[in-house]
Amino acid sequence: MSRDQKKIRTLLIANRGEIAVRIIRTCRDMGIRSVVAYSQADADSLAVAMADHAVCIGPADTQSSYLMQDNIIMAACVFRCDAIHPGVGFLSENAGFARAAEEAGLIFIGPCPRTISLLGDKLQARMTARNAGLKILPGSDAPVAGEAEACKLAEEIGYPVMIKAANGGGGRGIRIVRSSDELKKILPVAAREARGAFGDAALLIEKYLDHPRHVEAQLLGDGQGGAIFLGLRDCSLQKQHQKLLEESPAPALPEAIHDGMRDASLHLFRSLSYRGAGTVEFLYQDGAFYFLEVNARLQVEHTVSEIIYGTDLVRQQILLASGFPFSPEIMPSSSRGHALECRICARGPGKIHMLRLPSGPGVRVDAHIHEGYNVPACYDSLLAKIITYAPDRETCISIMLRALAELEVGGIETNRDEQMMLVSSTEFRAARLDTTLYGKLTAETGKGKNHE
Amino acid sequence: MSRDQKKIRTLLIANRGEIAVRIIRTCRDMGIRSVVAYSQADADSLAVAMADHAVCIGPADTQSSYLMQDNIIMAACVFRCDAIHPGVGFLSENAGFARAAEEAGLIFIGPCPRTISLLGDKLQARMTARNAGLKILPGSDAPVAGEAEACKLAEEIGYPVMIKAANGGGGRGIRIVRSSDELKKILPVAAREARGAFGDAALLIEKYLDHPRHVEAQLLGDGQGGAIFLGLRDCSLQKQHQKLLEESPAPALPEAIHDGMRDASLHLFRSLSYRGAGTVEFLYQDGAFYFLEVNARLQVEHTVSEIIYGTDLVRQQILLASGFPFSPEIMPSSSRGHALECRICARGPGKIHMLRLPSGPGVRVDAHIHEGYNVPACYDSLLAKIITYAPDRETCISIMLRALAELEVGGIETNRDEQMMLVSSTEFRAARLDTTLYGKLTAETGKGKNHE
Repeated sequence: MSRDQKKIRTLLIANRGEIAVRIIRTCRDMGIRSVVAYSQADADSLAVAMADHAVCIGPADTQSSYLMQDNIIMAACVFRCDAIHPGVGFLSENAGFARAAEEAGLIFIGPCPRTISLLGDKLQARMTARNAGLKILPGSDAPVAGEAEACKLAEEIGYPVMIKAANGGGGRGIRIVRSSDELKKILPVAAREARGAFGDAALLIEKYLDHPRHVEAQLLGDGQGGAIFLGLRDCSLQKQHQKLLEESPAPALPEAIHDGMRDASLHLFRSLSYRGAGTVEFLYQDGAFYFLEVNARLQVEHTVSEIIYGTDLVRQQILLASGFPFSPEIMPSSSRGHALECRICARGPGKIHMLRLPSGPGVRVDAHIHEGYNVPACYDSLLAKIITYAPDRETCISIMLRALAELEVGGIETNRDEQMMLVSSTEFRAARLDTTLYGKLTAETGKGKNHE
Repeated sequence: MSRDQKKIRTLLIANRGEIAVRIIRTCRDMGIRSVVAYSQADADSLAVAMADHAVCIGPADTQSSYLMQDNIIMAACVFRCDAIHPGVGFLSENAGFARAAEEAGLIFIGPCPRTISLLGDKLQARMTARNAGLKILPGSDAPVAGEAEACKLAEEIGYPVMIKAANGGGGRGIRIVRSSDELKKILPVAAREARGAFGDAALLIEKYLDHPRHVEAQLLGDGQGGAIFLGLRDCSLQKQHQKLLEESPAPALPEAIHDGMRDASLHLFRSLSYRGAGTVEFLYQDGAFYFLEVNARLQVEHTVSEIIYGTDLVRQQILLASGFPFSPEIMPSSSRGHALECRICARGPGKIHMLRLPSGPGVRVDAHIHEGYNVPACYDSLLAKIITYAPDRETCISIMLRALAELEVGGIETNRDEQMMLVSSTEFRAARLDTTLYGKLTAETGKGKNHE
């Protein structure tokens, strides 16, 4: 071990649900003690039961627990942790939190704070990507200053355009407008919403693609300018911008597009000297692809990339954050087969009185539920990720349908049947994927359709 | 599809337990209807619940159900099945059953009856292997005719020698003798036992290796003289000849031995024009390896080969038995990583009132148990196979320990803790494997030790 490499003995997990369980498992595999920081609402969670230690950091309300930076860092210090893994969501892309962790002497399992900060600012990220040679969607280079400027920009770009909060994320607060009249009507509403949701009324305008595919590249960076590409994922099946179904490789994509996304994302990661796992998101429509954003963290759907590359991305994150270089033993080389992930979500809170998770050949399940578990109302509705793998996409789909059929969750309603419908649809089987597919298949109107 | 290729629409599974569930899952993936033939004792089994159809073929006693050939074939005809899968054990290596199935117009998922018959006769199999250029253990070329001949042969071979039933199998009825006095004493006892267990008093004598490794090659044959090698498995961890823990690749094996086993087993399969999945078992000691036998069927531990080769061996069996040739799309090419299997067995009958099966990254579970299930006393004690996989053996072992720790079976006693002890032992971790290891680690005396 060189002077810059640190051995992590105890790691605090600043998250909950299936991703906390996911991280605990890798900690166990690596001989690292895990400490879960949990809210009062999660006291009976699987993560708390499975971790080596658990520490309550506040009440159910996320602002007072999972987003309460000081409490989390204090808990890490009390338990003599060497590192913090932020999981996905919550503080995972909060540069201030990453910096505070480092200042407290902790290894932050993620990119360095400067990188997070740069990529978290949508405008800066756009410029960085453009400077690295990536094609970006036509749009604002700065928050729009008033109605006149907004209308002028929208005319230049051409309708439909998308209005979004400059500090937003997760697909929230996005509105599509198709005319200047509509734009004028929506601007003040959107500004008010942005302030309410993200504490900042600043808005951006971007070209709106009406039937793009959402394709993203998984990468690992060593923080020294080295980067590895771990394939593309298609995540086009979304319900109101929430991903439902992901797969890797991205099917039916022209080789030139695959190679273009690979090269662009590698170039971007190298130019950033990016450290750890990260994702470059693209929109692809009519033969062209556009940079959307970088997710400077692990993603829920990292599992499909793990499977086809035969690697553990949480392990890689931990090693890279500890200062280990890429090495042939730990690094995946080439992909094999196809993998698919279905997110199983609760339709509402309730108690799970019966549970059978699928298993057998070609099936992996990442879940945080158990019999007797009370699904709380206050958090993300994700209960389990069903991941299937096979040499080819068709078999992978068959295995997914078998696994979904084996899944039984008694006591609460889930989206299992809807997932079965999506996976078995002719469009999905034929890989005719774009972000309007969910709307088409569920025949929803209004907001559901076209993911508006 | 060529004229010789048949499409299987409905398949009868002439087996029970986890292997029946395993086969049902692949049937589902392939769009094949499954019919499970079950005994009265298995009416509430998972296989019966999961299959498309189930048919009771007799009472608990295996002679009157799972070994009752006529009932099984009749059930297949009644349900208009195209094929029978015999699973492992029971009738899976019964040439008469395979022939009867074919005569009833059914595809037998296995080698052709002639091959089964040839390989099922230990003496013929030895000769076939020897003629194919494989090294065999010094021993009888025919059943020993009386005490004088037995003593002469044993002297020639050199003590210790092994006495086994000519028609035995599964490690049963094997005795080790270390002197002519002992041989004279044991011969009549062994003959009586052989007649009782296998209906034939004929005995064979073979050189006994006192600390061999059990290594086996997984192969697929196309029935036309083509064969594919799918790596070696080490299955040295055995309790009284019953395998407990298997892995692939076989660790710490000299490359020349690996290549020698590969070439010998490929040569044998080609010379037999073997069809379907099969295993060539070897004993390896002091730098030399000896042909032990061919298992002309699927094996319990086929899972570890599936994982590292990224294939489904039951699917391959079905395709090959249906007359499909090897094709690049369906055939695995190269192996990746390491896989380990732990057999979780019941220590006795009882009702499972609580069950948590492990899951997460690197874990596959093949099981046939559920909450409320009554483990019957009359069958094999196997409850579940926990399979783990990783890029390297060390990580694979860590994941196995994590998975075993997650496993909870309430209501009956299992061998889980013993498996944890075996997997975490210094000897196993260092891959110092041979068939005496179980005895050493459990510090059993007498029968347990040295698997006598």
